[in-house]
Amino acid sequence: MNILITGGSGFLGARLARTLLAKGSISLRGQGAMPIDRITMTDRVAPPDDLLGDRRVAHVQGDLLELLQSRRLPTVGTDLVFHLAAAVSGECELDFDLGMRSNMDTTRALLEACRALGSQPMFVFASSLAVFGNLPGQPLPEPIRDDTLPTPQSSYGIQKFISEQLVADFTRKGFITGRSVRLMTVSVRPGRPNGAASGFLSGMIREPLAGLKAACPVSPQATVALASPARTVEGIILAAEADDARWGPPTALNLPSLRTSVGDMAAALERVAGPQATALLDWTPDPLVQRLVRGWPGHVEWTRARQMGLAADADFESIVRDYIRENPGAVKLPLR
Amino acid sequence: MNILITGGSGFLGARLARTLLAKGSISLRGQGAMPIDRITMTDRVAPPDDLLGDRRVAHVQGDLLELLQSRRLPTVGTDLVFHLAAAVSGECELDFDLGMRSNMDTTRALLEACRALGSQPMFVFASSLAVFGNLPGQPLPEPIRDDTLPTPQSSYGIQKFISEQLVADFTRKGFITGRSVRLMTVSVRPGRPNGAASGFLSGMIREPLAGLKAACPVSPQATVALASPARTVEGIILAAEADDARWGPPTALNLPSLRTSVGDMAAALERVAGPQATALLDWTPDPLVQRLVRGWPGHVEWTRARQMGLAADADFESIVRDYIRENPGAVKLPLR
Repeated sequence: MNILITGGSGFLGARLARTLLAKGSISLRGQGAMPIDRITMTDRVAPPDDLLGDRRVAHVQGDLLELLQSRRLPTVGTDLVFHLAAAVSGECELDFDLGMRSNMDTTRALLEACRALGSQPMFVFASSLAVFGNLPGQPLPEPIRDDTLPTPQSSYGIQKFISEQLVADFTRKGFITGRSVRLMTVSVRPGRPNGAASGFLSGMIREPLAGLKAACPVSPQATVALASPARTVEGIILAAEADDARWGPPTALNLPSLRTSVGDMAAALERVAGPQATALLDWTPDPLVQRLVRGWPGHVEWTRARQMGLAADADFESIVRDYIRENPGAVKLPLR
Repeated sequence: MNILITGGSGFLGARLARTLLAKGSISLRGQGAMPIDRITMTDRVAPPDDLLGDRRVAHVQGDLLELLQSRRLPTVGTDLVFHLAAAVSGECELDFDLGMRSNMDTTRALLEACRALGSQPMFVFASSLAVFGNLPGQPLPEPIRDDTLPTPQSSYGIQKFISEQLVADFTRKGFITGRSVRLMTVSVRPGRPNGAASGFLSGMIREPLAGLKAACPVSPQATVALASPARTVEGIILAAEADDARWGPPTALNLPSLRTSVGDMAAALERVAGPQATALLDWTPDPLVQRLVRGWPGHVEWTRARQMGLAADADFESIVRDYIRENPGAVKLPLR
């Protein structure tokens, strides 16, 4: 089994690769487990050293669109593509053309390249909760279902939603076997902040645990739909593994989410790391972020994911404890 | 007022131009009627002679994508674009790459060219009922509403739906003032058959009236959502004229439709032109067309269009009589 992971050096791409390498094999569409021979990671930067040290990992560094145009990727014999590479929401809003290139042109070029393979490879596309947005002057539908009409209110969301459509049509035409999963806001992300407007939902946990101040620019009542890194990667892999009946229709699937509030997240942090942690939170409101967050769904149903056997995180405190266990070097505060 | 009509030599484009020229003025977003100084028609072929004879009409012939890339279109000072040009559904299903170029790349290039004008021109996009399709093994939602999630089951439908998303985001970003209207199946189209799978819904009236045989390849019970050419053009123009409050949200709007059946259409033909007309109908079923038509919505709600003041045709017989009045030279049978 020959796997390509785009955005492979990102936090999710690297975690996905580690999980696959630890599994050692994968079953496509329920057709029996096959050993993983190779994972090709592509990104603008090199993947982490632990991945480079695995003899099954290859690494192709560069701009994905250029790599596709020069036919360096995908390599012949690619059976499975996880397409995670994307410019993030904040970037796409600041630079429209960058977003169209990174998120729409690149996805289309990757789909065309997979079509050219002629082998109908499995193509798992990481879409996003960001396809949902509230129309001007209207609240979001409550709850958001798998078949709610997305009305994206960001260029990032539009580009993800357009890519879902392309994946669906390339699949219908028999060019690929495509499956789109909508990732929820992933928290707690380790590492450094990225340009995503949702970044504070990880930073408000990660930075205080490291003894650093963190912005919490919305009200404690703001509700959000979150998933831990582990649950997110689990959903991405199951999208490739599920047989056709278990997967269901060719439309995008909402991954499971935990419905919580920013105030409850801060309370979980305090239960784990005490008031010295929450004292590092700066609750100065940022009207721009507040407006954006109000447009994000806090209540997302995931009926199809549940029918597939996926589950959400039990509560936010366990997400915080998972983060601490997985990132011991990033925690400086004494824990309770 | 400087207007560009793409697909201007097609039947709808030409009818739109004639209607606008007869009006003489148009009001954009409810901002007061302005005289129409120029209508630039673009298409691969020349527009009809009556339009070329109007001094307000200019004509730029060629491939639209090439005309946009060479910056011949849109001309400086364009206030309003009606984007009707498209490869039709049958073509796009036979030639995937042609459809992507004609319906997706060209729409995007036109949107970029309008953005480059810097004047936020009004952009009316002719989308289609074809964005709706039934998922494999599932019936269509009944009824289809303005906010039903489209799950297109044709490349044409996917390309139209993607274009709706681009129009919405270019509008949100302030590059254009975009409005997408979903055209219903237009019947009775005059002229010759085109490559659309829905073509028989005009041919089954037009050909018998001309004394010719016509295929009716589905069962009389098949339900369809139709609009006459007049009602269709009315909706396209109102999309440009309505003020923002009357237009409503930035999502696409279903134009009004008459819900009828193929059997009722044949009965209307017989009431107008007698059994000699319906004797020319060949009811041999075509399984491919039957399958396609089953995937088309027969029951489409148009709540937003009604709130804007638009109306559907009263009944199919009046559509047939309108066709006969407007196309006297195309009718060879004696009428009742």
